[in-house]
Amino acid sequence: MSKLAVLAFSGGLDTSFCVLYLKEQGYEVATVTVNTGGFSPEELARIEAASPRLGAVSHTTVDARAGLFEGYLRYLVYGNVLRGQMYPLSVSAERVCQARAVAELAKEMGAAAIAHGSTGAGNDQVRFDVAFRALAPELEILTPIRDLGLSRAEEMAYCAERGVVFPEKTKDYSINEGMWGTSVGGRETLDAWTTLPEAAFPGGVIGSLAPKTLTISFDAGVPVALDGNAMDPVTLIAQLNALGRPYGIGRGVHLGDTILGIKGRVGFEAPAAHLLIGAHRELEKLVLSGKQLFWKESLGNLYGSLLHEGHFFDPLARDLEAFLESSQDRVRGEVRLTLHPRAFVVEGVQSPYSLMDPRIATYGEANKLWTGAEAAGFAKVFGVQQTLTLKAKSN
Amino acid sequence: MSKLAVLAFSGGLDTSFCVLYLKEQGYEVATVTVNTGGFSPEELARIEAASPRLGAVSHTTVDARAGLFEGYLRYLVYGNVLRGQMYPLSVSAERVCQARAVAELAKEMGAAAIAHGSTGAGNDQVRFDVAFRALAPELEILTPIRDLGLSRAEEMAYCAERGVVFPEKTKDYSINEGMWGTSVGGRETLDAWTTLPEAAFPGGVIGSLAPKTLTISFDAGVPVALDGNAMDPVTLIAQLNALGRPYGIGRGVHLGDTILGIKGRVGFEAPAAHLLIGAHRELEKLVLSGKQLFWKESLGNLYGSLLHEGHFFDPLARDLEAFLESSQDRVRGEVRLTLHPRAFVVEGVQSPYSLMDPRIATYGEANKLWTGAEAAGFAKVFGVQQTLTLKAKSN
Amino acid sequence: MSKLAVLAFSGGLDTSFCVLYLKEQGYEVATVTVNTGGFSPEELARIEAASPRLGAVSHTTVDARAGLFEGYLRYLVYGNVLRGQMYPLSVSAERVCQARAVAELAKEMGAAAIAHGSTGAGNDQVRFDVAFRALAPELEILTPIRDLGLSRAEEMAYCAERGVVFPEKTKDYSINEGMWGTSVGGRETLDAWTTLPEAAFPGGVIGSLAPKTLTISFDAGVPVALDGNAMDPVTLIAQLNALGRPYGIGRGVHLGDTILGIKGRVGFEAPAAHLLIGAHRELEKLVLSGKQLFWKESLGNLYGSLLHEGHFFDPLARDLEAFLESSQDRVRGEVRLTLHPRAFVVEGVQSPYSLMDPRIATYGEANKLWTGAEAAGFAKVFGVQQTLTLKAKSN
Amino acid sequence: MSKLAVLAFSGGLDTSFCVLYLKEQGYEVATVTVNTGGFSPEELARIEAASPRLGAVSHTTVDARAGLFEGYLRYLVYGNVLRGQMYPLSVSAERVCQARAVAELAKEMGAAAIAHGSTGAGNDQVRFDVAFRALAPELEILTPIRDLGLSRAEEMAYCAERGVVFPEKTKDYSINEGMWGTSVGGRETLDAWTTLPEAAFPGGVIGSLAPKTLTISFDAGVPVALDGNAMDPVTLIAQLNALGRPYGIGRGVHLGDTILGIKGRVGFEAPAAHLLIGAHRELEKLVLSGKQLFWKESLGNLYGSLLHEGHFFDPLARDLEAFLESSQDRVRGEVRLTLHPRAFVVEGVQSPYSLMDPRIATYGEANKLWTGAEAAGFAKVFGVQQTLTLKAKSN
Repeated sequence: MSKLAVLAFSGGLDTSFCVLYLKEQGYEVATVTVNTGGFSPEELARIEAASPRLGAVSHTTVDARAGLFEGYLRYLVYGNVLRGQMYPLSVSAERVCQARAVAELAKEMGAAAIAHGSTGAGNDQVRFDVAFRALAPELEILTPIRDLGLSRAEEMAYCAERGVVFPEKTKDYSINEGMWGTSVGGRETLDAWTTLPEAAFPGGVIGSLAPKTLTISFDAGVPVALDGNAMDPVTLIAQLNALGRPYGIGRGVHLGDTILGIKGRVGFEAPAAHLLIGAHRELEKLVLSGKQLFWKESLGNLYGSLLHEGHFFDPLARDLEAFLESSQDRVRGEVRLTLHPRAFVVEGVQSPYSLMDPRIATYGEANKLWTGAEAAGFAKVFGVQQTLTLKAKSN
Repeated sequence: MSKLAVLAFSGGLDTSFCVLYLKEQGYEVATVTVNTGGFSPEELARIEAASPRLGAVSHTTVDARAGLFEGYLRYLVYGNVLRGQMYPLSVSAERVCQARAVAELAKEMGAAAIAHGSTGAGNDQVRFDVAFRALAPELEILTPIRDLGLSRAEEMAYCAERGVVFPEKTKDYSINEGMWGTSVGGRETLDAWTTLPEAAFPGGVIGSLAPKTLTISFDAGVPVALDGNAMDPVTLIAQLNALGRPYGIGRGVHLGDTILGIKGRVGFEAPAAHLLIGAHRELEKLVLSGKQLFWKESLGNLYGSLLHEGHFFDPLARDLEAFLESSQDRVRGEVRLTLHPRAFVVEGVQSPYSLMDPRIATYGEANKLWTGAEAAGFAKVFGVQQTLTLKAKSN
Repeated sequence: MSKLAVLAFSGGLDTSFCVLYLKEQGYEVATVTVNTGGFSPEELARIEAASPRLGAVSHTTVDARAGLFEGYLRYLVYGNVLRGQMYPLSVSAERVCQARAVAELAKEMGAAAIAHGSTGAGNDQVRFDVAFRALAPELEILTPIRDLGLSRAEEMAYCAERGVVFPEKTKDYSINEGMWGTSVGGRETLDAWTTLPEAAFPGGVIGSLAPKTLTISFDAGVPVALDGNAMDPVTLIAQLNALGRPYGIGRGVHLGDTILGIKGRVGFEAPAAHLLIGAHRELEKLVLSGKQLFWKESLGNLYGSLLHEGHFFDPLARDLEAFLESSQDRVRGEVRLTLHPRAFVVEGVQSPYSLMDPRIATYGEANKLWTGAEAAGFAKVFGVQQTLTLKAKSN
Repeated sequence: MSKLAVLAFSGGLDTSFCVLYLKEQGYEVATVTVNTGGFSPEELARIEAASPRLGAVSHTTVDARAGLFEGYLRYLVYGNVLRGQMYPLSVSAERVCQARAVAELAKEMGAAAIAHGSTGAGNDQVRFDVAFRALAPELEILTPIRDLGLSRAEEMAYCAERGVVFPEKTKDYSINEGMWGTSVGGRETLDAWTTLPEAAFPGGVIGSLAPKTLTISFDAGVPVALDGNAMDPVTLIAQLNALGRPYGIGRGVHLGDTILGIKGRVGFEAPAAHLLIGAHRELEKLVLSGKQLFWKESLGNLYGSLLHEGHFFDPLARDLEAFLESSQDRVRGEVRLTLHPRAFVVEGVQSPYSLMDPRIATYGEANKLWTGAEAAGFAKVFGVQQTLTLKAKSN
């Protein structure tokens, strides 16, 4: 009897090749597509239909959108995580979430092996391999694309010989769409000096649009309503993406480091991620202590690095999640934003836990909290060590 | 013979009151105005003329703009320091720079005392007090405004009795202008929920302007040329401020913590700071290692906190400057930006020290640096500890 | 009717003076003694008897030892917190714990004021003031010792006039005893160059003692048994203090920074703190990931700084507690230690969650986790960025 | 003509095998031994004599002791770096220093390849590979031991067939001796629960020795004199090792993480490292600001991690060296220590830059720096944010 291999399957050339190839290596292949926001119902149906035609023994579609928010995006909001202050960790979060779902399914199905279609060049292979080994260490990992190193033409020829025809690549850019952002790579992104044109982004050229104001509500750090209408995070994110996309909100080109040590450049479009993090950050400024803000900044950045660099299953990530979650208990309130072409402005923020209460103290004005003499005493003692240090130095 | 007091003097009501008041306390008062970019030549001349009319024994104008860049702003660029990811530390840097110049002048002049006109409510008193005590611990510090806690009307009456008439305050906003940014406070900024209108900013309502592209060159982290024209940093910053202001670049409202523990909200307009830091950050992404980028982010943020919170003279600030300076040796190259209303886009970046060399390796493609088998070995060993940890947990 | 003031009371000269003085200021004084391990039953009885003789309207004794462990010491163990790698934060933890108990009692009793006997020179005044204002902001804070700045002789005379006689101070050192450590200050500690003799420590001169081996068990980071005998943490700490004291374990002289900016030097004796942290640290090395160990080190240190420097009520401290607690779930096992005069040696450590399993991999030997070729692939990819960086530099 | 390979050579079985094996692969082999303190003159002579007998074309001995201090150990002292608060990074520093010397020699000699004898199991292979690729990327790297994975018996047989006879391994422990510490591995270190006996350490069983007091002087953070006698660091370290060894100073068993993700346990004996870091740390407490001490602790730890984990050539390490060096300018003075069996005590410390000047302020006593009222003002303002935060929470 042949061994069962569960394959992360997108319906594209690479993973279709994998089905055909693994079958010839003697595996029964079960395909699984994990939807983290990148597939329309039509696409999912097309993928589901393609799987048996390639000879897979079964196909499973997993809707992981709510799980993606709960297990990953939530913490990225808590930590205001934007890599290089711009790039949402959309691909990192999705890939780990997908790998996890595939590994769990493989264990449930009693598979002998688990497979992915990543090449040996980028981050995804590391994320898949690490997650597979951490979650299902007893399963063999199969990576035909990485092992064989075939060109696109060679893969196409292999498939065509087996009756599966793929069209020539006609698009200039490879697009990776997901709930937390869409990435755009190719042509201009390969050279750091060249402009990626607006037309290359899914949202296209940005027109002149009238400003639009919206209000996002948070409870315990989680976005819970848009313009006063309560909704679940998956719906809210979809609505923000739709609203922000024509304005070109959350667009950019990020130049960053890969796990394997080289630099890469990628365009991205992530309206919801930018709007939610911008709003959340401002609400935090109102309700968190200065020390919380300082340390959350560093530790949120660290959390993002762990996720991006393939260390999501290190228990440190759990400890940071506990830190971030603890910091959110008072992050409740509303944030009002206005969208303009290419930019949004945070107009105002309010919270029952506001630390900026004009009845108690107003910056720059006399207040009820201290007198001038007390402030002078504060400033004197506050500076003691700096005085002593400079004095010692000048001796 | 009466004792000499050197007073940080802006020509406004508070510091004019101080001249009159200190004279009556038996001091000879020498005024000093330190220009960190907030005064036009006309204003400086007006201040210079006002000083003797108040009875000061001397007036000194210090042009501290080049010194402000060299001693403060330079490190804020190296560290990409924007408080809360938006607010340039313009006021903090200027105040410390001014305090330093006043303290040095007071020592040169053999003064017995040193004075400032800050109230007991805000950050500036702390910055002045700390700097004065650190740099001139032997001098008495005089702070009439803080000590007396008079209202504006009371100060005006006091001055008027001595023949110095100040007009009623007619402006809605108090504006603090400087090389690294202009702050706007008052009315809407006092309530976190209210929108500060575009018209309140010095640059006014933002019109619809055609995009404008510019190129900034850096050498060892310092901006050295604009569109290929070499210029000193003071000139370059002034030009960027002039270019960016009509577009509303670097505008925002920041909600932040004061040294004294309360929150405050302030509008700001800082085109040059935002453009330079945005450009510099992108250039760093091209030439610095991933580990440098990660730690620079935290330590730049720390440096900004020290400056903002009155710890500039702590020797830790010098150690961080050494760290930041060391990190800049390869930060050389050009950054091309396009200005749009309310936003700018980094189009491209190039450097002789680029770590993104498509001849060696391109992200996502097979390359000369490793084979698929080597990548697989890497991914396997890379994940060992995560595998072991999860395994131990599930025992 | 006179107003009620609740006073933190130790029965010594300063706080006895406070009772007498506050009564004459028109307060009814209720005394409270919070035992965090520094008082024997006899001392507590003596203090209880002294209170009414001074004219207090009531006296309360609070046993806060279990609460001290649960709310403070537990986190210091989780974080392996030793200031300057030696000083346990015994006084800081006790003072905050005491201030909290006093504030809570004052609120329960409906007091109008809350008082402590600290001077204006040290850390304790800040810890008391901050805790009182944070927990009972509606109560007036009374600090006669700080306000009056009397000498010891003046306080004694004041008391004697009111029939309360205190003996001349005859001890060379002031001793502060508690569950987590005993501090010793005076004479030699005032000059950083002078040796504090062994005889000055409560444990006295260290003799030559035979080695003694013990085993401490932890569960979820909490010490739960000694030599296999389960016991509560308060008992376990007392036993370790008794065992370690004759050996001089956990003794030292610490030179540190005060909240007010000056340096101070203090002797301490803290056998239990050193043994528990030494044992706990070693157990963590066996079960935590390397990344957890690295970041716990920094964040434990930060937590200790918050506690020491009067920021315990900043919500950041709660977030760090969540981080530390999360990290402890696998910290279970036994640690075997041997006591020698002035030193202890960690002999061995074991845990069901051990990450050092010789059946899987042994350091320095071929193992089942990777092949030589995989290790070579790892090392190659691992070094890519260093290679590229040096290459770029030498261009 | 055959290609030249330069081999890091210790004269042991593994590297002797490499000479023979590489010759048969068609290389001319040049051996190089880099002395970082682990070889006596007799051993170096023996190694020099062995090389031509194996057929090497040349042998070079490099004395890298002064360079080891200047380029590595110096920063470990500045940063007080002890891994896990105990283990000096002796092997890490030596290996990187050796790899560097070998790579430089290989380039000078115009070699085609560069070789080391590390297995695929441990850290050293990574340190060698990374350093070789970073410093001499154009050279081929040869690693016969890792590639072939032979057993000790197989290597011995291979050598014996070629007339080179090695004795059976008779020692229970493998010892790695160097200037900064000697490591001991084998038998008991393989199981975390088992005691490594005192007799297993090079210094043997610790007897009862009379206390011995010594004084170490530092200038700009560098140790420059012992008991008042100026000497270079290499000599000073050797003397401290000789003095401390019989007392068992700096001994321990460390359980730590390897670069490859598994845990290992190793005994070590490092008297000089422990004495110098203990003394230096205390001197820093006297002269550095509290903020410097806090951040140096984290960043020193980070520097140690980079060195240990094979990232020494990342430019971040240079930036951290700049930070650490900047922090040392006032680290000058004397530290007096007393050695006891298994422990040393820091008795006192003095410096011209002392921040603990009893003429200005003494901890716990009234002083010239502030009044009681000023301290009260300080404490009040200091606690404002904690008060506001708790108040907001309880709303």
